[in-house]
Amino acid sequence: MSQHRYLLGEDRIPTRWYNIAADLPSPMPPPLGPDGNPVTPDMLTPIFPMELIGQEVSQERWIDIPDPVRDIYALWRPTPLFRAVAWERELDTPCRIFYKYEGVSPAGSHKPNTSVPQAYYNAQAGVKRLATETGAGQWGSSLAFACAQFGLECKVYMVRVSYDGKPYRRVMMETWGSECVASPSSDTNAGRTILERDPASPGSLGIAISEAVEDAATREDTNYSLGSVLNHVCTHQTVVGQEAVEQMKMAGASPDVVIACAGGGSNFAGLTFPFLAEKFAGADIRVVAVEPTACPTLTRGHYAYDFGDVAGMTPLLPMHTLGHSFMPAAIHAGGLRYHGMAPLVSHLVRNELVEAQAYAQRECFAEALRFARAEGIIPGPEPTHAIRAVVAEVERAREEGVEKTILFNLSGHGNFDMAAYQSYLSGEMVDTELPQADLDRAAAELEGLPTPA
Amino acid sequence: MSQHRYLLGEDRIPTRWYNIAADLPSPMPPPLGPDGNPVTPDMLTPIFPMELIGQEVSQERWIDIPDPVRDIYALWRPTPLFRAVAWERELDTPCRIFYKYEGVSPAGSHKPNTSVPQAYYNAQAGVKRLATETGAGQWGSSLAFACAQFGLECKVYMVRVSYDGKPYRRVMMETWGSECVASPSSDTNAGRTILERDPASPGSLGIAISEAVEDAATREDTNYSLGSVLNHVCTHQTVVGQEAVEQMKMAGASPDVVIACAGGGSNFAGLTFPFLAEKFAGADIRVVAVEPTACPTLTRGHYAYDFGDVAGMTPLLPMHTLGHSFMPAAIHAGGLRYHGMAPLVSHLVRNELVEAQAYAQRECFAEALRFARAEGIIPGPEPTHAIRAVVAEVERAREEGVEKTILFNLSGHGNFDMAAYQSYLSGEMVDTELPQADLDRAAAELEGLPTPA
Repeated sequence: MSQHRYLLGEDRIPTRWYNIAADLPSPMPPPLGPDGNPVTPDMLTPIFPMELIGQEVSQERWIDIPDPVRDIYALWRPTPLFRAVAWERELDTPCRIFYKYEGVSPAGSHKPNTSVPQAYYNAQAGVKRLATETGAGQWGSSLAFACAQFGLECKVYMVRVSYDGKPYRRVMMETWGSECVASPSSDTNAGRTILERDPASPGSLGIAISEAVEDAATREDTNYSLGSVLNHVCTHQTVVGQEAVEQMKMAGASPDVVIACAGGGSNFAGLTFPFLAEKFAGADIRVVAVEPTACPTLTRGHYAYDFGDVAGMTPLLPMHTLGHSFMPAAIHAGGLRYHGMAPLVSHLVRNELVEAQAYAQRECFAEALRFARAEGIIPGPEPTHAIRAVVAEVERAREEGVEKTILFNLSGHGNFDMAAYQSYLSGEMVDTELPQADLDRAAAELEGLPTPA
Repeated sequence: MSQHRYLLGEDRIPTRWYNIAADLPSPMPPPLGPDGNPVTPDMLTPIFPMELIGQEVSQERWIDIPDPVRDIYALWRPTPLFRAVAWERELDTPCRIFYKYEGVSPAGSHKPNTSVPQAYYNAQAGVKRLATETGAGQWGSSLAFACAQFGLECKVYMVRVSYDGKPYRRVMMETWGSECVASPSSDTNAGRTILERDPASPGSLGIAISEAVEDAATREDTNYSLGSVLNHVCTHQTVVGQEAVEQMKMAGASPDVVIACAGGGSNFAGLTFPFLAEKFAGADIRVVAVEPTACPTLTRGHYAYDFGDVAGMTPLLPMHTLGHSFMPAAIHAGGLRYHGMAPLVSHLVRNELVEAQAYAQRECFAEALRFARAEGIIPGPEPTHAIRAVVAEVERAREEGVEKTILFNLSGHGNFDMAAYQSYLSGEMVDTELPQADLDRAAAELEGLPTPA
């Protein structure tokens, strides 16, 4: 019998998060406030607790994970590492393929790795209520789960088009006790302004962020919570990679290539940052970030200072961006439809420590189908992109006549995304390439903003 | 940090299935053919492979699990055993509550424990194609997964009302490469006959069984596969309980009460049969089967010989039944809407080795909500019944002033059942008590059939 799964006991849940900022070969440009000067911690206190602000700017390599957070991680962590025995057979490759599987969390993805500590630190700071936005619902449901654990109220502004089209993610949030409203909503000034202009607005992540930030900034009892992009979010996700490092050792294997999809960047950071630490120390590892051709932030975007939201309410972040007013096509990988990218991930790509690739969604689902029939697990739309990139590595290895060890992050299951599979199976799914006009518009939009050093 | 999960390595996947028939305190009445005489193996060969027929009638205590089956079990087995640390706190009880969690399988429930060996033995016997029925889709998707593993074609007759209302389970089957049609279909005589009478028939499990059996009986390359009720199905599920016995030992605990929901009986058998073996050997364990008040087969049904399907195509089985023409109310626990019960489970209840309880669905969902907010996992509608029964045990222990150790089977997650939670949360969910008229009708229907000794 071939070994399929490498499991760790609860005692092997990491005790610290890895903060890659301590090891960057060159310093990252700072986020900037509205006055063009670096953001100071006190500017963030209206919406974040001090502990998270401290983590956001920390240069310490290791940050202790509080026991109550580890205690909740223990509901699903350590997650399994799989050797893709059947998929290797299906691909007829001598390469060894491993995947870390984050779909075993209650919400079905890697997102609770950060929603739990975020809820914890807010509860510790006496905050009673969190506000956040969600697109397809992965993040909103993860925060709802975490808030239930710490007795926090939670309000989720869910992009209208998803709220209407994906009611089950909303029901999941309500099952965990959170409130979920369609955005734009009449509950905020930002929402009302949009609705006055366009009562039938389908909403966007940018609008929903504006609503959640306003909610948090205007209510004494409420803070804001973000599911990706920021440094502390990337840092929380490193429990994934730390476990994978240990599990690869159990398997007696060392990856030549580490692959993860990247939307805002936190899933990518989670698996790869601990392996990048080994790369910084001399290990021969290639690290690949994979994104959709419909939202090719890293492969075709500008590296620039840009806002995280449409309305320009957030600080300016140094990142790869398609412009903060960019509206990506309605691809099924909702988690990869973001105009920007985590500054940490952008910095690593810019310094050529990380490669970036983009694939169209049909080729991703085609490979995901082969994966699902071999391995059993039906992947979420986002990690189908990582799967496509693994197949590209396998083909490249075949051409080069070499045997590689490949590791990728299967960041979530597709149980709530069967409409995407239906679209693929029925032949209705379409591919989208970003028009050059979008890049030109982004360039114009970014022109008046500062440029990172 | 409290211990949450008890994990076993792949090497601890059971190597044998436990066949409780070898240990029954009194022999079970045999199934009867159309002539009123016991069914002989050769009557079953048109639709089942010899290996499974042998297991169906076996009196051997242990049946070896073939290596290729264990190899696929390894994709998700051994499953975790949880101590419900947070739920105990929420219930404010000194009782220790453990649950075995089968939702980690690719299809999200315990069903693949038997779909995999069934597909395997059929593939070994040279069968190219399997036909089956499914209600809400749990079984159909589990067989689709298993057939993908062994390269078998699979056709699933899915009850029309579920086919229309739960498209995502169907897409799941198609993702794994199976064909799924609405039943009644125009593909079989059974289906066409119904459609001629009622072109808008919503279908029923009984009709779908008739279609699948006809498909298998009339095609040389095709066999039939059933997801519950039969002896060999119950036997396959005992991997669940065998692992749980070992994991309870890891936890240093011994259950006073073992609880599982029962529809056709296979989930119940899976967890409890290995503990019943300990009970037969003298252990002081109560074993409880839980069913819905809308389909109270064990608590209010007749113990009688009855057909497994509406059309009377199956052998007569000695079991608790509400009559083979019974149409249960449209409760959300689709897996518990069956008129009969596994003969093995019925026999144990009749011999007072197993207790039976029934609960209405709203009280089940109320407790499931508390469970989900504490433990994170959102239960499928079926195991909400087991959860309700655990709470009853906790209350009883409180009244008696004792501390009990309780174990139950969380047989699947609710990711595909969010409409049920929506119904509960919106206040639309209704409870159903079985009308006495249904029992009277069943009694009349059973009158002409033989009576078990």
